[in-house]
Amino acid sequence: MTLLVVGSVALDSVFTPFGQTADALGGSAVHFSVAASLLHPVRVVGVIGNDFPVDQLDRLTLRGIDWSGVERVEGESFRWKGKYSYDLQSRETLETRLGVFANFQPRLPAGAEEAKFVFLGNIDPELQLGVLDQVKAPTLVACDTMNYWIQSRREPLLKLLSRVDLLMVNDAEAREFSGDWNIHRAGRWLLERGPRRVVIKQGEYGALLIEKDRTFAIPAYPLEEVFDPTGAGDAFAGGFMGYLARNGVADTDAMRRAMVYGSTMGSYAVSGFDIQGFEGVALHDVVERVQLFEDLTRIPAAERIQ
Amino acid sequence: MTLLVVGSVALDSVFTPFGQTADALGGSAVHFSVAASLLHPVRVVGVIGNDFPVDQLDRLTLRGIDWSGVERVEGESFRWKGKYSYDLQSRETLETRLGVFANFQPRLPAGAEEAKFVFLGNIDPELQLGVLDQVKAPTLVACDTMNYWIQSRREPLLKLLSRVDLLMVNDAEAREFSGDWNIHRAGRWLLERGPRRVVIKQGEYGALLIEKDRTFAIPAYPLEEVFDPTGAGDAFAGGFMGYLARNGVADTDAMRRAMVYGSTMGSYAVSGFDIQGFEGVALHDVVERVQLFEDLTRIPAAERIQ
Repeated sequence: MTLLVVGSVALDSVFTPFGQTADALGGSAVHFSVAASLLHPVRVVGVIGNDFPVDQLDRLTLRGIDWSGVERVEGESFRWKGKYSYDLQSRETLETRLGVFANFQPRLPAGAEEAKFVFLGNIDPELQLGVLDQVKAPTLVACDTMNYWIQSRREPLLKLLSRVDLLMVNDAEAREFSGDWNIHRAGRWLLERGPRRVVIKQGEYGALLIEKDRTFAIPAYPLEEVFDPTGAGDAFAGGFMGYLARNGVADTDAMRRAMVYGSTMGSYAVSGFDIQGFEGVALHDVVERVQLFEDLTRIPAAERIQ
Repeated sequence: MTLLVVGSVALDSVFTPFGQTADALGGSAVHFSVAASLLHPVRVVGVIGNDFPVDQLDRLTLRGIDWSGVERVEGESFRWKGKYSYDLQSRETLETRLGVFANFQPRLPAGAEEAKFVFLGNIDPELQLGVLDQVKAPTLVACDTMNYWIQSRREPLLKLLSRVDLLMVNDAEAREFSGDWNIHRAGRWLLERGPRRVVIKQGEYGALLIEKDRTFAIPAYPLEEVFDPTGAGDAFAGGFMGYLARNGVADTDAMRRAMVYGSTMGSYAVSGFDIQGFEGVALHDVVERVQLFEDLTRIPAAERIQ
């Protein structure tokens, strides 16, 4: 059950109240694959410039991540620079340099077209569609997007929505895309555009799995220390898709469990800069934290009130 | 197991994007008691001015609420006027007139000093302490407060905290009181001031029950239509305390279930102006919605990952 992610491999410069990074390993495909690789082998498709510190990718190799699908081309790597507020509740993008991503045309490496679980990370929806065209018979295709594409590529994004099984966005994106501030109406609006399920990430408040007639809500793991929210959403997606690929299933029950694995990975992601939150984290740690989620949300049985 | 609430009985003028009210039935004790009365008899202690439209209180009598502890005195009733933003996420207080509440000295009516479950609604902490002094041997004392008292009555509020079993506030209040933006650290700070448990209400994101070594999180009921958030927190408290009083227990398991009843009552409260969200709601409706919460939060069992 091959798990495939296409997305950015980036150099991030992040400012938080607790410190800062400069040209650190980042990007949606990186955060996704680091989280997913704890659960299932993952193949990455992306692009880097010839200025990319390739030794950084050794950190992915050590995790068994197959990044042979990451092309290295002439030009500057994708760079993002951002600054968080004192309470990490909001962030400002200081600079986005697409670099080699501007002309990227994803080509799947041999065998990747057989992938069963596909995550189309946050890139131009035209490119996401281009990847989708190359995949033969996927079990589950999920995609992410962001305000930039919602504003500038609405038509291809709507076309993409009609072709994916699951959309995974944060609450601000769901509100902006649908034009509705009520998150449940926004979720229904998105469902009506094609995907059978919508996952809405709500940061410190958790996440929702919205289906036509049912909703599932999972809180965020209670953390007293949060260092850097960058990549938390992609790590969530990695845990979610990694769990499904590992088990080879994509029904509602499996997706609800996948939400717990996603939330667990998100909690590691925010605990350090770049991918440092995952340092020293092994599968048994993940399993333990998943069990803590069960206690966090457990409603004890009781005598029924008549 | 007498359930007692002391709090405001008010005339509210509320502006929302969906309509407005003028001098409508409101106040913490009203919203609390309407919700609680679906689960357990409740006695109200409060004060109204001689301008209060007493027929409005018939709406409480019809629900079996004992408001014989509400004094009617010379002067103007407590009035609050507020306006919500387009997305109901924030509100502005346009006017607060304490009226007869300025000189209120709560006196428990005969028998109320035997109350086992006591909720000290959002009033001056000196008054909350005054009520607490009159109660003989309560099983559970819970209190609410707000930014106004946190800023102006910090010392008596800290004294109150050291004497109650449970503090119930919203996230902004927890942050302001503790001076910490991280909600879990804020919760721990509050626990260290006395109460064994802290409930933090997070509006559309649900609520947390924080104990020394454990946290429980419950999402809000998914609502596509929300009309007026006024009183939702008090209705939550009413459901929470009503459930505990009905069962005569106050352990962690009971409190977790009480959180579900609280959330259920909050979902009715926001569905209409003043107490209209509860019109036509019977106990069996409450029980049904509580069961829906169980589905909303259910993590399906699965083979353990090794």
